[in-house]
Amino acid sequence: MSNQVNLLVAQSGGPTVAINASLAGVISQSMASGKIDKVFGAKNGIQGVLKEELIVLSDIFDNEEKIKDLQHTPSMYLGSCRYKLKDPHQDESDYLRIIEVLKKHNVKYFFYIGGNDSMDTVAKLSKYAEDMNDEIYVMGVPKTIDNDLRAIDHTPGFGSAAKYIATSILEIAHDTAIYDMESVLIVEIMGRNAGWLAASSVLARTEYSTAPDLIYLPERPFSTASFVNDVRQLLKKKKQIIIAVSEGICDVEGTYVSSQEANTDQFGHVRLSGTGKYLEHLIHDTIGCKVRSVELSVLQRCASHIASRTDLEEAFELGKRGVDYAMEGATGYMVRLLRTCEEPYTVEYSIEDIDKIANEERRVPQEWINESGNDVTEEMVTYLKPLIQGESFVTYQNGLPSYLFIKL
Amino acid sequence: MSNQVNLLVAQSGGPTVAINASLAGVISQSMASGKIDKVFGAKNGIQGVLKEELIVLSDIFDNEEKIKDLQHTPSMYLGSCRYKLKDPHQDESDYLRIIEVLKKHNVKYFFYIGGNDSMDTVAKLSKYAEDMNDEIYVMGVPKTIDNDLRAIDHTPGFGSAAKYIATSILEIAHDTAIYDMESVLIVEIMGRNAGWLAASSVLARTEYSTAPDLIYLPERPFSTASFVNDVRQLLKKKKQIIIAVSEGICDVEGTYVSSQEANTDQFGHVRLSGTGKYLEHLIHDTIGCKVRSVELSVLQRCASHIASRTDLEEAFELGKRGVDYAMEGATGYMVRLLRTCEEPYTVEYSIEDIDKIANEERRVPQEWINESGNDVTEEMVTYLKPLIQGESFVTYQNGLPSYLFIKL
Repeated sequence: MSNQVNLLVAQSGGPTVAINASLAGVISQSMASGKIDKVFGAKNGIQGVLKEELIVLSDIFDNEEKIKDLQHTPSMYLGSCRYKLKDPHQDESDYLRIIEVLKKHNVKYFFYIGGNDSMDTVAKLSKYAEDMNDEIYVMGVPKTIDNDLRAIDHTPGFGSAAKYIATSILEIAHDTAIYDMESVLIVEIMGRNAGWLAASSVLARTEYSTAPDLIYLPERPFSTASFVNDVRQLLKKKKQIIIAVSEGICDVEGTYVSSQEANTDQFGHVRLSGTGKYLEHLIHDTIGCKVRSVELSVLQRCASHIASRTDLEEAFELGKRGVDYAMEGATGYMVRLLRTCEEPYTVEYSIEDIDKIANEERRVPQEWINESGNDVTEEMVTYLKPLIQGESFVTYQNGLPSYLFIKL
Repeated sequence: MSNQVNLLVAQSGGPTVAINASLAGVISQSMASGKIDKVFGAKNGIQGVLKEELIVLSDIFDNEEKIKDLQHTPSMYLGSCRYKLKDPHQDESDYLRIIEVLKKHNVKYFFYIGGNDSMDTVAKLSKYAEDMNDEIYVMGVPKTIDNDLRAIDHTPGFGSAAKYIATSILEIAHDTAIYDMESVLIVEIMGRNAGWLAASSVLARTEYSTAPDLIYLPERPFSTASFVNDVRQLLKKKKQIIIAVSEGICDVEGTYVSSQEANTDQFGHVRLSGTGKYLEHLIHDTIGCKVRSVELSVLQRCASHIASRTDLEEAFELGKRGVDYAMEGATGYMVRLLRTCEEPYTVEYSIEDIDKIANEERRVPQEWINESGNDVTEEMVTYLKPLIQGESFVTYQNGLPSYLFIKL
């Protein structure tokens, strides 16, 4: 077919449970449009384009049911990469190769689903194509559990991670409350330099449980003296304390707390213990009560069985809307959602210039953290609440969630 | 009422997601029998009896819906304790106090839901009551995620923990597979000296994923040299390796692997790093590829949202059957289930003399572990599979599982 118009999509960065939902949205809307012949997927992000490792997604996902299966599958169906394009003025070779592969396969639309670094690729590639007068439309679709992208109300993947975190802390609160003795349990939560994920632990609070009793975010300098004092004061009022802490908390000089305990093993190797472990040791050494730390680790970004339906549906919709915008001629944009109403919760979809988004971090506003820096405010709760609503539509086979596997 | 006959129930040991289901079964059947006036619950196990801290469960759970809510609530509604009764020939005071409290409240039936240590209490107390000719019937109801009780096909709580573990490893397999590079991920699983829980990771294997690629149980001596060799050999065949390991693995001399890495912090404190961390460091130092360890920690015993329906239903039934047996005059027994058919899976309920159960550990049979000691056999898979079938009937409120809280 001489007038064949194709779309190519790839995924990049760290996994979330919603990134395949956006992929499903892109495939679904492309085929529904009647204007796209094939949807290609590149394996392992932009590296798959460079290596011309493509699969035909529109052949694989040729009915509603398969699209649905993809929508609730965790991680990235197409695999990922962490690859940063160089400045084309210094080294043009990657760009020449990408355009060559796209043209060879009649690709008019290139979609990149990812976080901050992926939006950098969208920015550079769209600019390059425009400068070269290549008729290629480049669109970014956001995702990151960290919720640290600008110009969007919240990122796909975040709501599901928040739901996992809140559910886990609620269940840990049950587990901890059974013994009639003083205890401290510290939950270490992801998020790098942004406290959104640790803040979402606040949703675990119910009419019967105050856990987490203390919340520490990287947006405030962390003081070990204040921390120990907070715990001491609270132990006078209640026996079991649960603490949510962001992996990225730093002291007043900006040094990661996790790097402040350098253990040495028998061979003299230096090991970093992690934020949770460091605080566990601190409580043990200063207060001396029963103390345990739990690191939610990768589970918070891949537990699709407890995904937020709101999150999965929004991620799907973002993929769809991105296709609509690209077909109207948009390039160098990221598709996004903005909240239009708090109660009932509604959002509106639009696009934003990629240059206003790429390489910038959005952190928790100071006014959403309490004065003592050990909790979040009601504004944060209001912001977070709608994002975890609704349950995943995962199906089970032989007692396990039924997922599609990564196509590598 | 002069002829009032009451039942008292308490919970003990570590939490599981099924122990409240057994409690629900005890309450439900007691009230259905028409022979019990009140069901009392003692707070914090046998300590609540000693302190006479009782609540009237039959008043609280007076309809089907409330019973159902209790059935899917994690941890222990009545709280727990770790309290061992002394030999009555050395110190009779606890026994005298317990009998006094039971008689004061017209308690004819005493139920204790717990693991190994709790069955020791059932054994001692039933023997004492018999010796004293007190008409008190003592019944044990089993629970433990570790599945290490004798004379029962499997313990309530185990199936749900197994389902959580298998689901988590399946989701971790997705998370790990996205990058085109060598990596090793080690999952540390509970179970103390028994490998049942670590073995249940095998259920994560699907037609598309071989994870966990290696499984190490405490029933075989662990050799670091063989372990590193296993990983090296496997890395020649595949890029991403996922390893399931029991927290309780020991070397050939019986020393816990977790105690073999004594880190020292800046103050000279010795810290044990845990089995997973130890193996992570070992791979880092010997093979040097990307390596991470994940400790499932308390989540594997409290994640009710991913409980096994089979487990919750069996736990409920065990509570009910226990009441039936006690009313027929049984004392000094544990109610149990035995598998009567593999395909379709069926079980039969009965009771077993408590002396054949208390204080004995059941470990994984050697023939269910492969020759190299790095995997389990098909017999293990056949045994485990029915136990994780069916999903929890948990309900959600505001995006979170809706649970009853501990009544302390």
